[in-house]
Amino acid sequence: MAELSRSATEQLTEAGRIFYERGWARGASGNFSVLLARKPLRLCITAAGNEKGTLDETNFLEIDDDAEILQGFGRPSDGTLLHLTIYRLRPRARCILYSQTAAGIVLAEKNFVDGAITLQGFEALKGLSGVKSHEHKERVPIVENSQDQIARSHVIENVLLESKSIHALFVRRHGLFAWGETVEEARRHVEAFEFLFEVASRTTA
Amino acid sequence: MAELSRSATEQLTEAGRIFYERGWARGASGNFSVLLARKPLRLCITAAGNEKGTLDETNFLEIDDDAEILQGFGRPSDGTLLHLTIYRLRPRARCILYSQTAAGIVLAEKNFVDGAITLQGFEALKGLSGVKSHEHKERVPIVENSQDQIARSHVIENVLLESKSIHALFVRRHGLFAWGETVEEARRHVEAFEFLFEVASRTTA
Amino acid sequence: MAELSRSATEQLTEAGRIFYERGWARGASGNFSVLLARKPLRLCITAAGNEKGTLDETNFLEIDDDAEILQGFGRPSDGTLLHLTIYRLRPRARCILYSQTAAGIVLAEKNFVDGAITLQGFEALKGLSGVKSHEHKERVPIVENSQDQIARSHVIENVLLESKSIHALFVRRHGLFAWGETVEEARRHVEAFEFLFEVASRTTA
Amino acid sequence: MAELSRSATEQLTEAGRIFYERGWARGASGNFSVLLARKPLRLCITAAGNEKGTLDETNFLEIDDDAEILQGFGRPSDGTLLHLTIYRLRPRARCILYSQTAAGIVLAEKNFVDGAITLQGFEALKGLSGVKSHEHKERVPIVENSQDQIARSHVIENVLLESKSIHALFVRRHGLFAWGETVEEARRHVEAFEFLFEVASRTTA
Repeated sequence: MAELSRSATEQLTEAGRIFYERGWARGASGNFSVLLARKPLRLCITAAGNEKGTLDETNFLEIDDDAEILQGFGRPSDGTLLHLTIYRLRPRARCILYSQTAAGIVLAEKNFVDGAITLQGFEALKGLSGVKSHEHKERVPIVENSQDQIARSHVIENVLLESKSIHALFVRRHGLFAWGETVEEARRHVEAFEFLFEVASRTTA
Repeated sequence: MAELSRSATEQLTEAGRIFYERGWARGASGNFSVLLARKPLRLCITAAGNEKGTLDETNFLEIDDDAEILQGFGRPSDGTLLHLTIYRLRPRARCILYSQTAAGIVLAEKNFVDGAITLQGFEALKGLSGVKSHEHKERVPIVENSQDQIARSHVIENVLLESKSIHALFVRRHGLFAWGETVEEARRHVEAFEFLFEVASRTTA
Repeated sequence: MAELSRSATEQLTEAGRIFYERGWARGASGNFSVLLARKPLRLCITAAGNEKGTLDETNFLEIDDDAEILQGFGRPSDGTLLHLTIYRLRPRARCILYSQTAAGIVLAEKNFVDGAITLQGFEALKGLSGVKSHEHKERVPIVENSQDQIARSHVIENVLLESKSIHALFVRRHGLFAWGETVEEARRHVEAFEFLFEVASRTTA
Repeated sequence: MAELSRSATEQLTEAGRIFYERGWARGASGNFSVLLARKPLRLCITAAGNEKGTLDETNFLEIDDDAEILQGFGRPSDGTLLHLTIYRLRPRARCILYSQTAAGIVLAEKNFVDGAITLQGFEALKGLSGVKSHEHKERVPIVENSQDQIARSHVIENVLLESKSIHALFVRRHGLFAWGETVEEARRHVEAFEFLFEVASRTTA
């Protein structure tokens, strides 16, 4: 891959290793991506089925807006349309990371009827971009999982259109997709959410 | 040992170290094996009583279909017949790994009357070989533990004959035995199951 | 920075890395400081918004008693007045560390109406400076969080005046601020408290 | 110190580091020892107040049967008489290790009225020296903590005389003292117990 995307793969490989070590990326679920260009839209995204703890350069694909593979080998992940939808509707997002934890899944299950995990009053919320006060109320919409990726991406499109200020969304019994303007920011968002999921799952037990 | 089996011991030593670090192999319980040949059947298996976190070449035995030791020193593990039974009835299995966690033991205890831990609807199920949808229903049969290895291996034989599509089985108050076509695949199966045990043990609490 | 404060940043950087690894400093919450001089009062304190796991020399500020920046770049953390108040009212304190855990937040929530987390009868209490018996009764006052730093520092002033023998205080839904005569002692205090929070949050569940 | 005891300090230093990393030795509670000689009885034991994760040669004392310091500097730990009592009444013990976990403390609290934590039916019990079957019933006597070391050591003497086959004892709201014929065996015993405490504390919740 070109220089820019090599740097992208390095950053995502490091994020994968860290997430794996913390137990946020066990098995091969989920996928990570970085935006390479907006016009025309090009992504660097993890290929399907790889363990996130030991990604290497061959585990990434470069794809365009139609999920066509421009570089790399392998099958695009089941979450590819989800990533494309987020980049289309969040013009400032340049990275999407994924985490999968028992705390998150259990909490989402408890809050599924409400359609969102709601977090308020915690200092850790200030880890989210633009949040200045712990009194901030953050919603993490919960979307039903589906093997029909197109249908699921339409649902996510609606969620993103309705919820302008969210930093992440949760796919039920799957995991958290969080974005940011940089890999570092997306990573900080995952950290803040996973910490608050742990707090909230203990509180509402 | 010969070149092939040395490579097997290296892979199992690494798996042991990783499992130990995650808290899946505390104490000296359980055993790991790799199939060296099918006809005649030969295994490389951990000897009894060694800590899994610091295995070295001397902690493995090469055994045949009758659990006779062909190479190496030490006592065959109490789980040897269990491993042989799995390899006989699962022609594609080439590696069996073991994990022991509080989440697994507690969950199996809760589900013992049902005879199996049932997992369905989770994205992480797609970490299991051949599973394409989160809607997949996976059963992990629970077998009573016994010091009579022959009796226990007959029970396991029946379980394997009845449950064609399982990826692992659980010995009560003992731990998970998962297999795969490679060490890597068996390891991914353990990861997926241990993650789902954590989720399920929190959900059904 | 000068030699003395460089040493301070090194010690705080190491504490940040350790706290991060244990999951006590996820996201960018909280701040760490070391007293550089008493008269006139000068602090080395973490700047706002940095992750605690990877602090470097550029993430610290040297400030005076009025929170004026003497050296370094960046915004003083929201907790700066809290630190200054502690140093003013605790003449022997030379280091303040911060930890943020689910156990602590949940426990403080349960005890908020009592105004303090009370810990008694545990051997681990002897990890606190001056505590000679496990029968010691330790109070950790819980203070409501506020974006109004001046108001919050007045509340903390009262708490410190009323509670002469405390080793730390808890800001609600935020985290623990613990102090000591050295970085090492402050670190040991955080360790003891976080361990006891884990015990107490399991006991009173 | 002499060659023999230097090797003892190295082994205990390593055990301390490992226990610390797993969260079994936070703060400065507890103490570790190795028997240097039986007649006359000489111990290498950790001095009071040191963190177990970063022990070095200066953190150990060599003491005799009267707890007199033969070599090294520092105050003997509050647990010294407890160690001496175990070595006197368990002629094969050559190492005593200590662990302190939330799971253990909470479980002991629940079982305090019974005078012991009872563990039965678990495969992990076979990690204890001499235990051949998971059906084995292991008792871990729970002793009330006391600042009066002499009184406490008399209670422990009675416990050791009454309970011939135990591998460890628990001091209430303090932690587990486990012994073995080698450092490695004592370490395996701690591992087995801490694992089973985690299982039992989840089961009886």
